[in-house]
Amino acid sequence: MEKNLQYYLDQLKALNFKDMYENDFFLTWNKTDDELKAVWVLADALRYMRQHNISTRVFESGLGISIFRDNSTRTRFSFASACNLLGLQVQDLDEKKSQIAHGETVRETANMISFMADVIGIRDDMYIGKGHAYQEEVVKSVTQGYKDGILEQKPTLVNLQCDIDHPTQCMADAAHIINTFGGIQNLKGKKIAMTWAYSPSYGKPLSVPQGVIGLMTRLGMDVVLAHPEGYEVMPEVEEVAKKNAQASGGSFRVTNDMADAFKDADVVYPKSWAPFKAMEKRTKLYADGDQAGIDALEKELLAQNAQHKDWCCTEDLMKTTKDGKALYLHCLPADINGVSCKDGEVEASVFDRYRDPLYKEASYKPYIIAAMIMLAKFQNPVETLEALAKRNTPRKMK
Amino acid sequence: MEKNLQYYLDQLKALNFKDMYENDFFLTWNKTDDELKAVWVLADALRYMRQHNISTRVFESGLGISIFRDNSTRTRFSFASACNLLGLQVQDLDEKKSQIAHGETVRETANMISFMADVIGIRDDMYIGKGHAYQEEVVKSVTQGYKDGILEQKPTLVNLQCDIDHPTQCMADAAHIINTFGGIQNLKGKKIAMTWAYSPSYGKPLSVPQGVIGLMTRLGMDVVLAHPEGYEVMPEVEEVAKKNAQASGGSFRVTNDMADAFKDADVVYPKSWAPFKAMEKRTKLYADGDQAGIDALEKELLAQNAQHKDWCCTEDLMKTTKDGKALYLHCLPADINGVSCKDGEVEASVFDRYRDPLYKEASYKPYIIAAMIMLAKFQNPVETLEALAKRNTPRKMK
Amino acid sequence: MEKNLQYYLDQLKALNFKDMYENDFFLTWNKTDDELKAVWVLADALRYMRQHNISTRVFESGLGISIFRDNSTRTRFSFASACNLLGLQVQDLDEKKSQIAHGETVRETANMISFMADVIGIRDDMYIGKGHAYQEEVVKSVTQGYKDGILEQKPTLVNLQCDIDHPTQCMADAAHIINTFGGIQNLKGKKIAMTWAYSPSYGKPLSVPQGVIGLMTRLGMDVVLAHPEGYEVMPEVEEVAKKNAQASGGSFRVTNDMADAFKDADVVYPKSWAPFKAMEKRTKLYADGDQAGIDALEKELLAQNAQHKDWCCTEDLMKTTKDGKALYLHCLPADINGVSCKDGEVEASVFDRYRDPLYKEASYKPYIIAAMIMLAKFQNPVETLEALAKRNTPRKMK
Repeated sequence: MEKNLQYYLDQLKALNFKDMYENDFFLTWNKTDDELKAVWVLADALRYMRQHNISTRVFESGLGISIFRDNSTRTRFSFASACNLLGLQVQDLDEKKSQIAHGETVRETANMISFMADVIGIRDDMYIGKGHAYQEEVVKSVTQGYKDGILEQKPTLVNLQCDIDHPTQCMADAAHIINTFGGIQNLKGKKIAMTWAYSPSYGKPLSVPQGVIGLMTRLGMDVVLAHPEGYEVMPEVEEVAKKNAQASGGSFRVTNDMADAFKDADVVYPKSWAPFKAMEKRTKLYADGDQAGIDALEKELLAQNAQHKDWCCTEDLMKTTKDGKALYLHCLPADINGVSCKDGEVEASVFDRYRDPLYKEASYKPYIIAAMIMLAKFQNPVETLEALAKRNTPRKMK
Repeated sequence: MEKNLQYYLDQLKALNFKDMYENDFFLTWNKTDDELKAVWVLADALRYMRQHNISTRVFESGLGISIFRDNSTRTRFSFASACNLLGLQVQDLDEKKSQIAHGETVRETANMISFMADVIGIRDDMYIGKGHAYQEEVVKSVTQGYKDGILEQKPTLVNLQCDIDHPTQCMADAAHIINTFGGIQNLKGKKIAMTWAYSPSYGKPLSVPQGVIGLMTRLGMDVVLAHPEGYEVMPEVEEVAKKNAQASGGSFRVTNDMADAFKDADVVYPKSWAPFKAMEKRTKLYADGDQAGIDALEKELLAQNAQHKDWCCTEDLMKTTKDGKALYLHCLPADINGVSCKDGEVEASVFDRYRDPLYKEASYKPYIIAAMIMLAKFQNPVETLEALAKRNTPRKMK
Repeated sequence: MEKNLQYYLDQLKALNFKDMYENDFFLTWNKTDDELKAVWVLADALRYMRQHNISTRVFESGLGISIFRDNSTRTRFSFASACNLLGLQVQDLDEKKSQIAHGETVRETANMISFMADVIGIRDDMYIGKGHAYQEEVVKSVTQGYKDGILEQKPTLVNLQCDIDHPTQCMADAAHIINTFGGIQNLKGKKIAMTWAYSPSYGKPLSVPQGVIGLMTRLGMDVVLAHPEGYEVMPEVEEVAKKNAQASGGSFRVTNDMADAFKDADVVYPKSWAPFKAMEKRTKLYADGDQAGIDALEKELLAQNAQHKDWCCTEDLMKTTKDGKALYLHCLPADINGVSCKDGEVEASVFDRYRDPLYKEASYKPYIIAAMIMLAKFQNPVETLEALAKRNTPRKMK
């Protein structure tokens, strides 16, 4: 039986998410279980409404500011889609075209761009210890600006990836898992392998593996983090994962054996990332402007990576998963053997078989972002959805 | 007597364009006569409604994706205007800011940007054998994505210029001719000279001359393609033009004599382009990364061009056209003698005399694009227009 | 007692601004006192409506074109905010991505981008004698295009900064002063010091000091322009300031003594700018492509600046102002001692104390721009506001 809007409204009504109002979305582990559930349910409700051609334009005007300090396609389009779905106009802060180089402070810029901003989305994932701190500074600045009567509204922050977490990605990943397994209640005891995989590039952010272990341990899953020695993630996030697992009745452990992680796994997420300590070192080298050091580090890291080409999601490994049919996840783009590189994260036949589910996984992100915005900007989203349903303006005319 | 909306609706009702629904716009010669007419009529209807301050906002939300693989002003603004007129938000895929370089496939990117896309506009005109193929791959990808349940709608493709055709330009050119001569029925037997002209730059795309001979032969016109030896266009398109002429009762011939083409012409379209074979060669050199070869080819082509400085739209040539008053066309910007270059495509006094008609010619493009979008996205555009007229929301408040 | 919408409507009704309709905003001194007042009142009215969640979306579709020939953050976002507030979609003309380099004329580009443009905002402040002239050429072009039937509406120009004036900035500055002092009527006899200040950069535009002396002399204020010898502004603008002061009952004088300007001032505006004559020289060097000359001039100007490091807005100087509490203004970003540079325009403690008012000052700009647009595009803005109030669509749903 197909779900209807009332189904989602009823689910929302049973959840307590009132603290999300006028708040921000930095890290999943700062949110309660109910709050995360509210994001998933509202995302599904917004998708339902769009599928049924009901406009969810809740803003007549307003800006959604995006700041991308790293290249981006899918997150950029997901943010643009989410803003558009709600009626907000995206305005990108291109730091190259701005006067920020003139020595302007974060506090000043944050306020200057926010006079009519309802949301600010930031990707800043390149330097350990910087991305999350920058997002916090922006939020502190606009919160102060709002309190001081400078801003007529406090824009909500949506973390589009920082050095610690990638919540819009991981929440979309989780939505995909939840829907694949038929509901959160079915995830208890399911095993997910978040494993490192070889890539010929280097320096990929740690926010995905960290976000995954920080979030999936909330769902009662048995989470295994696997990587070669030397590819450790931030210890603080491992601590978060441990505590979460304890609270949810799941488990969390780390292994240096990919096969161990894949064995009987229900879900696998093989993906390259850089060692935390190398990223810390790189951040310092950049801060010092030490180009020779940066080049040497790159060389060293690529050589280190190359020792682990056997960390690849092969057909053979897939066969060892639960019924040989684990759900394969990736945040995309993946490094595919013989397609985008000689040796990479995954064999082409594995990737091909999971293409549709992978694209479906990605399709949740715009709705997840839209839900995060709505929960922060609307005091009673259930009533807002009911009003939208009653208004019943078609998204697209007949 | 001024036309009213009913006039356009009646015209539309007499046409069969039902196959345009959920379809794409690649090349004019893949469309039936009725389908092309539907574009022109709907474009005029949308213009009429805007002139009468009736909002044609048929989308409450939705994205119009643009991908420009070559610089663009007027097509970029035309696409943005068309999307805006219908209520879509333009989101540009700037390949420099994206992660596409990471080895992502066209199939993946096409789906990743399309979750909320109603239209994708692509300009890819630089390399022979590439532009159209790329557009086809994008359409194939999103069509599959829609079928597989990844996308909730299939975005329609609008070809904003490929290596073969430039349909939004040529359809706008034709709209201008049709309106200048008082209707399609008056074009039978009218002579149009699509001629090469000298330019100090090199490597201009062939899509305009190809598009023009492929389209104007549909209208029963006597189409003459003129160029110096060595400046041949794609043979396949010449074949298309021949067949079209036969079917429409017009004619098509090629000459190496500009004067021959201009003689008694009702319409002239003098414009520089690169030889098809040189463009093929260049495409290969780029693919091989052969910079020395590219430089040598550029030198060679500029020298070749310089032998044909006499191919210029002069006052003397214009005097030989029908009553000395042929309609002068150009897709703009033109290379004007003594204005943008010493020697170019056209004498300044000729260009000046036709400035208003040239700008008018360009003004059709936003409406042509909007019409293409509507015909692909709305199953019964006549009913949609009627609903818009009934709703009667002002585009701009009083 | 809080003001209500009727308060603003009554104020507007008492003003004559009918000539602003279908007109443009180049320079404040081309506008009558009533017209400037209409901008301030309408800006406040639009802010009031937004604060009370009343949508001011007066356009269902339409483009706001922006052309930034210099980097910009706050003006870019202010323009985007203003357009969005009224329902217009911003489309930026990025001259690097366009074909303008191909030798296209201003007249042509201006028309090509304006088919659906309701407003064009231009920043062109780099070269003396160029910026304003360029804006005039654009307006002349689209006015002609509209008369010739090319354009279906004449887009209004909003000068987002030229070589002569920076009206959106100075009108926002004035709005801030007016609101701080409780009304225009309270500004008679108030002293404002527009003074040069040291900056380690060079070549900052003169449009702010020129705009300030040209505008504040309209308000009956005692305007003192202070700068070291050699840092003169355009003589024509000094003439404007003198005449304005005479007409308004204020005064205008120039001094080479910063202390003289600050003494008993009610408002101070210390800010770096380049000498007019040096900017003229630079403009010529750029035109000649004389890079050696440009480099030599930069060196010379930085050396000249460095002789005046004592021109800084210090705590000691602030103490000499009226009750030691003059309102400190800046267009931002400021060069702050020990923050963005070693020695700069202002001591950090002064800047910090005025941060909130400075941000408030900046917050007027989006509303000022929106008011300029509305006054040019709507024949009877009072009726339009009344219709908006009656329609009472929430900007953001409940």
